[in-house]
Amino acid sequence: MAAELTVHALIAKHRPTLDQALEAIRTRAYWSPHPEHPKAYGEHGSLDAAAGKAAFDAVLGTRLDLGQPGTDDWVGGEVSPYGVELGVTYPHADVDVLLPAMKAGQRAWRDAGAEIRAVVCLEILKRISDRTHEFAHAVMHTSGQAFMMAFQAGGPHAQDRGLEAVAYAYVEQVRTPDTAEWTKPQGKRDPLALTKRFTPVPRGIALVIGCNTFPTWNGYPGLFASLATGNAVLVKPHPRAVLPLALTVSVAREVLAEAGFDPNLVALAAERPGEGIAKTLATRPEIRIIDYTGSTSFGDWLEANARQAQVHTEKAGVNTVLVESTGDYKGMLSNLAFSLSLYSGQMCTTPQNLLIPRDGIRTDQGPKSYDEVVADLARAVEGLLGDDARANALLGAIVNPGVKARLEAASGLGEVALASREVSNPDFPDAVVRTPVIVKLDGARKYWEGTDDEAAFMSECFGPVSFAVAVDSAADALDLVRRTVREKGAMTVGAYTTDEEVEEAVQEVCLEEAAQLSLNLTGGVYVNQTAAFSDFHGSGGNPAANAALTDGAFVANRFRVVEVRREA
Amino acid sequence: MAAELTVHALIAKHRPTLDQALEAIRTRAYWSPHPEHPKAYGEHGSLDAAAGKAAFDAVLGTRLDLGQPGTDDWVGGEVSPYGVELGVTYPHADVDVLLPAMKAGQRAWRDAGAEIRAVVCLEILKRISDRTHEFAHAVMHTSGQAFMMAFQAGGPHAQDRGLEAVAYAYVEQVRTPDTAEWTKPQGKRDPLALTKRFTPVPRGIALVIGCNTFPTWNGYPGLFASLATGNAVLVKPHPRAVLPLALTVSVAREVLAEAGFDPNLVALAAERPGEGIAKTLATRPEIRIIDYTGSTSFGDWLEANARQAQVHTEKAGVNTVLVESTGDYKGMLSNLAFSLSLYSGQMCTTPQNLLIPRDGIRTDQGPKSYDEVVADLARAVEGLLGDDARANALLGAIVNPGVKARLEAASGLGEVALASREVSNPDFPDAVVRTPVIVKLDGARKYWEGTDDEAAFMSECFGPVSFAVAVDSAADALDLVRRTVREKGAMTVGAYTTDEEVEEAVQEVCLEEAAQLSLNLTGGVYVNQTAAFSDFHGSGGNPAANAALTDGAFVANRFRVVEVRREA
Repeated sequence: MAAELTVHALIAKHRPTLDQALEAIRTRAYWSPHPEHPKAYGEHGSLDAAAGKAAFDAVLGTRLDLGQPGTDDWVGGEVSPYGVELGVTYPHADVDVLLPAMKAGQRAWRDAGAEIRAVVCLEILKRISDRTHEFAHAVMHTSGQAFMMAFQAGGPHAQDRGLEAVAYAYVEQVRTPDTAEWTKPQGKRDPLALTKRFTPVPRGIALVIGCNTFPTWNGYPGLFASLATGNAVLVKPHPRAVLPLALTVSVAREVLAEAGFDPNLVALAAERPGEGIAKTLATRPEIRIIDYTGSTSFGDWLEANARQAQVHTEKAGVNTVLVESTGDYKGMLSNLAFSLSLYSGQMCTTPQNLLIPRDGIRTDQGPKSYDEVVADLARAVEGLLGDDARANALLGAIVNPGVKARLEAASGLGEVALASREVSNPDFPDAVVRTPVIVKLDGARKYWEGTDDEAAFMSECFGPVSFAVAVDSAADALDLVRRTVREKGAMTVGAYTTDEEVEEAVQEVCLEEAAQLSLNLTGGVYVNQTAAFSDFHGSGGNPAANAALTDGAFVANRFRVVEVRREA
Repeated sequence: MAAELTVHALIAKHRPTLDQALEAIRTRAYWSPHPEHPKAYGEHGSLDAAAGKAAFDAVLGTRLDLGQPGTDDWVGGEVSPYGVELGVTYPHADVDVLLPAMKAGQRAWRDAGAEIRAVVCLEILKRISDRTHEFAHAVMHTSGQAFMMAFQAGGPHAQDRGLEAVAYAYVEQVRTPDTAEWTKPQGKRDPLALTKRFTPVPRGIALVIGCNTFPTWNGYPGLFASLATGNAVLVKPHPRAVLPLALTVSVAREVLAEAGFDPNLVALAAERPGEGIAKTLATRPEIRIIDYTGSTSFGDWLEANARQAQVHTEKAGVNTVLVESTGDYKGMLSNLAFSLSLYSGQMCTTPQNLLIPRDGIRTDQGPKSYDEVVADLARAVEGLLGDDARANALLGAIVNPGVKARLEAASGLGEVALASREVSNPDFPDAVVRTPVIVKLDGARKYWEGTDDEAAFMSECFGPVSFAVAVDSAADALDLVRRTVREKGAMTVGAYTTDEEVEEAVQEVCLEEAAQLSLNLTGGVYVNQTAAFSDFHGSGGNPAANAALTDGAFVANRFRVVEVRREA
């Protein structure tokens, strides 16, 4: 079906989109070329809902042969958080064969230049976009996200993040011209004159280490940033979330080959259970770039040990929302309730600690005591998730037994303001679906005395667990926000306040500690969501992540510029 | 004399220069606002030759009080490579006092924004430029460079590199707008609308670790890149080359104070003999950025141990020139002779290994045997340096006893094609002035047998020592270039060839190994010189340096962007 691609045709097809992306990252206004609505798919070659589901079903139980060199085995054992065994097997690589094969095509890919690399990447993204319905099921049945979230976050939003990375990579490479004529006057003598040629060159092979919860959304920025800057890319998915990235690699290889490049520029490294190949791969001399999303401990290990590579890590953090006062009490509660519930709190951006003054807060509904705020928030969550169908659609499934265990342990950490309840999923009876728990803790006392509450709220408790932390004052809360970001890192900070001084102070804390701040969100935007081309995901300046999605620093060191100069 | 500076006046004064610098790094055509000719100084407030010399003389034997907090002692013991004891003492810092004091002014500096920071940096550079004659003597009497080189490389060229860093830092920060209005359509419902504010925030305190040979040229890029991105900067000079950077810090503090900022945003950390404070400073939690020029061993130590910081290192390398054939034999010889002689080969960019086929080369003067090429090059060097006055003006002085010892040992490494000779300097009888030595080695034999020749030419022999390495063929030479760059790193590669295939092949080696290549230089541009705004110094992609001067990657991670978003 697919015709041979000419690079000229790809430029004609995708350059306008690239230009729009370049404009979007400059203005940071809203923009996306990837439709969010499932019904937008089904024309112009894209799969509609039924065709996407059929494509997903067709891959279940099969061997996904990517045609990679050095395949010495077939591995796989994904079980959906919804209880379905995927039964897909993937190539297991002999890396001593695969890595050299990945280098073979690098010269042609380098020589193609930044624009052709960019439009090839855009063609990959376009074909992924066309298969968004298929990818949605793959993301749903690996991450445990509910279908609609898997569709949007795993589809268009992930594609947006990939395109954003391509745009940054492109513009970074063309900041230096291809050639320059340099003529230096020498008074009465002839000028010195040189002709210079500048070539962006790749670092080598890039390694993407995928995560369980957002295989595409967190995987695409690094994958496309490295590929667009001329590197080959080896994708090592999380063993529980292989399929979405295996399909991605498959599309990338198909497009590369059709465009006349070596498909081995993108490859998959699936692993046997317990094999732990990430450590082996990460320290191979061929691997010069790493993008990782996951635990702090392995992220720290990579930063310390993968010294031959540029290492970009997104690790754990403790996200805080300061609740000091509000002019829209109802809006605040419903906004927070949604943030705590979405994907069962299994986002790196989900708020964990809600800091509430023990003397209560001012609201448009009159003063509310600490207990009232916590109770009203608990009721808001109950209301949001009272209907099981809606609860399933928002919560998705608990991604793995570790999260379930943490959730169950959380109720022992303090007074439970909102108990977690089991929700049954009629479509997937084996799915583990739970509403969030809210536990009351005391911030001020623990802050000074170092008792157990502090140990609880100063650790990341990944999953549907939030702590309503009583604090003595706004000033104490600000100190705690600062200390939390500095010591534990944070992907997000939220604050509700009508007090100009407090607003100013929380902004200053976030500027000084490099945390991304959402102020007084009461509508349909949530602290845990960021939009490509406009919002930065993480700051790269606190312990939660050493890079932000996406900025110049995320792409600038994935390539180097080599200059060749000669007399003119 | 200096009036209080308003930032508006600074913008009016310096914005045109900044704009020209931004244009220059985009086109990479020749440009500099800093005159190279000593006679260009003396008007518009700049010091002429006599005034500059007088200013330098006036500082000798004095205590250079920078007014820094936490000064607990006065230290210094610089002895010029020309034999003069400088007798200047500098503040020694109690870093537990100084580092906190340096943070006090960071908020105001951050809030000033990218443009004001840029023009304040340009004012610092302008005042340094006005004192170029004074700085020239300071650089000469710490590095051992001859006066004219100290004037140009330590003055206008260093200032150019500083300005280039400011330009990159500025443009990187303004890639993201200050504010954005984000409006996302929601079908029939009201759109989601957010107002976003983006602020570049500094990482913290930056540490510049200066070197002996090019205190200003190698120090300014990091200093100005960090300052322009909002960081405070602590300058730790090489103990033998304190004065040029102490004067720089003094000017920076003066300008910062006059512009209404805290002068402690820039400070000096001079040390007692053998104190080794670089290690202590480099691992302090306040230090978040490091720029270092020096030995590979300490550079590697910094990369491994200063994990809390972004570390930029320029270390040792082995620079190669491939001599395969030439259409201008005489031009090639004179160009190479100059490259080997300039500053007694004490540049990180000076060629060390000259690879020459043992069967000789084709030239416009007919075929030349290996022995003829080496002998002719030796004669060219002798001719260039035959006159003692000219020799002194080109060679400068040997910077330290270590270089002298290496030079003396080199003649034992193989057959000496050109012996080093002592040159007496009538103005400075204690100066150690030496012409370069050229030693014949065998590349092909050693390459396969691992004998001593290879140990010699595969190690950096910093100083006026070059090896004429006989190779079996151009192909063998290309292999050796590749292996040298990959294993030892290189700041520069040169090649002389009239053969298109060899030219293509050496370019490919340099693209694959990320080395900067100069082809067939026979005139007044030398492989060891790079021009700011146009040439990259180092590539950041081979072991000689992990950063290039200057590109986006050099500045992009010195700051982070914090976003504050709220409903519109």
